[in-house]
Amino acid sequence: IERPVDQTTITRRYTEEAVKFIQENKARPFLLYLPHNFPHVPLFASERFRGKSPRGLFGDVVEELDWSVGEVLNALRGAGVATNTLVFFTSDNGPWLIMREAGGSAGPLRDGKGSTWEGGMRVPGIAWMPGRIAGGQVQREFACMMDLFTTSLKLAGSPVPRDRVIDGADMAPLLFGTGAMQREPFFYYRGTQLYAARLGPWKANFITRTGYGPDKAQTNSPPLLFNVAQDAGEYFNVASNHLDIVASMEQAVEKHRATIVAVKNQLADPPAPAAKKKQ
Amino acid sequence: IERPVDQTTITRRYTEEAVKFIQENKARPFLLYLPHNFPHVPLFASERFRGKSPRGLFGDVVEELDWSVGEVLNALRGAGVATNTLVFFTSDNGPWLIMREAGGSAGPLRDGKGSTWEGGMRVPGIAWMPGRIAGGQVQREFACMMDLFTTSLKLAGSPVPRDRVIDGADMAPLLFGTGAMQREPFFYYRGTQLYAARLGPWKANFITRTGYGPDKAQTNSPPLLFNVAQDAGEYFNVASNHLDIVASMEQAVEKHRATIVAVKNQLADPPAPAAKKKQ
Repeated sequence: IERPVDQTTITRRYTEEAVKFIQENKARPFLLYLPHNFPHVPLFASERFRGKSPRGLFGDVVEELDWSVGEVLNALRGAGVATNTLVFFTSDNGPWLIMREAGGSAGPLRDGKGSTWEGGMRVPGIAWMPGRIAGGQVQREFACMMDLFTTSLKLAGSPVPRDRVIDGADMAPLLFGTGAMQREPFFYYRGTQLYAARLGPWKANFITRTGYGPDKAQTNSPPLLFNVAQDAGEYFNVASNHLDIVASMEQAVEKHRATIVAVKNQLADPPAPAAKKKQ
Repeated sequence: IERPVDQTTITRRYTEEAVKFIQENKARPFLLYLPHNFPHVPLFASERFRGKSPRGLFGDVVEELDWSVGEVLNALRGAGVATNTLVFFTSDNGPWLIMREAGGSAGPLRDGKGSTWEGGMRVPGIAWMPGRIAGGQVQREFACMMDLFTTSLKLAGSPVPRDRVIDGADMAPLLFGTGAMQREPFFYYRGTQLYAARLGPWKANFITRTGYGPDKAQTNSPPLLFNVAQDAGEYFNVASNHLDIVASMEQAVEKHRATIVAVKNQLADPPAPAAKKKQ
């Protein structure tokens, strides 16, 4: 559309396109994927939001994103599809800490983006579906972005593929309060290496490393074990008090390793980029 | 009343006494000061709450305190004095980190109890007065426990003493949304030493020291300067970018020192304890 882009306009323009898409597709099933550029750095807010938040430019950007979400919800209400549309808001990773104030904050969680500490991997997950999901409630169950695939298929009444392993679980019991999620252990990878595992409130950190910076990866044997329901900040290693849990986490990892087939790492060896125009 | 006390009963019994006090005094002005023992360690929850929270015993204790607050609010409603009673809920300091999971959490704030980092000094402050204070709002202004004295006098229509220096400010503008608080710089002390100062979003840390443990106090010259509105975790020292702010904070400290009269430190040199009965 334009190059260079005026990034102060993109949150507004993405939003306008999303609203238009909803209006045009309200009569049939649709999937709208709206991946905002921000709050990834470099940060830009439109004139309407810039300089308004006490949190600085990062706060301005978040307030504009909040406006954007409101516009999308209003469009769904206006199109008469609010009660049969699931809206799910989430993020791909924690804050990019080396970007300082512009990188965001993991709040009480340890470390940030690039790390398998909770600050790198645990992100907000906000679900909205008036009449189906009660507002204002907080659930502490574990779910992940891979679950959106399975959940969407289930909600749309489509079968989940059975000719391959699907890692995502159906979030519907969690979303609609109808029961417990069927959640297998979850494994935290950094690149191609398994760093940590989570099962219920327990997180075992087999390898730890800060997201960015010169610190090398540290192998922990036995793994550092945290009850992240009680100690979300991963301060208090309780491995020596819970050797049974450690053993069951190690078994879960072993079982997991036996079932996966390694594929080519697309991040480590990406396809050659297309030639770029000179700007 | 009894010794040794069964600490699993005290949250309930304090609450019952508070409710009784409200019922007995509803016809006249009253001040109820309800200082729960918990969540100070050692922690105890009654059978009704014990083992119920995913946050462990600390969570159980907090849930019982939450119940207690609900009982007090219900008593005020039942006594017909809810709309002319200010309820203020706060804490005396941040988490006692060396107590691990039992000590609490400062969330995103740095360090804890015993320190003048925000994690030691910044605590929740929750105000309730139906019809006067709109529910569900979050204010980011600065206020402190000393303000409760001045605020209570103002709300009760009593004069604030003028024959001595009163450090508290009237929180009414903040509570009722009628304007800005007249807040002077705030000074953070550890014992008799001034460690830090706060003015608006700025906090200057002249001396820093973790709350507990062997680390010695570190004197910072120039002070570490944080914009705690943007960086509540005190990660990013911006002193070198804001030398004018540093200078104004230093002037504020100088002015403050010139006006105070040192008094005997009651903590460093306490009165002799009364003789204890053998238990």
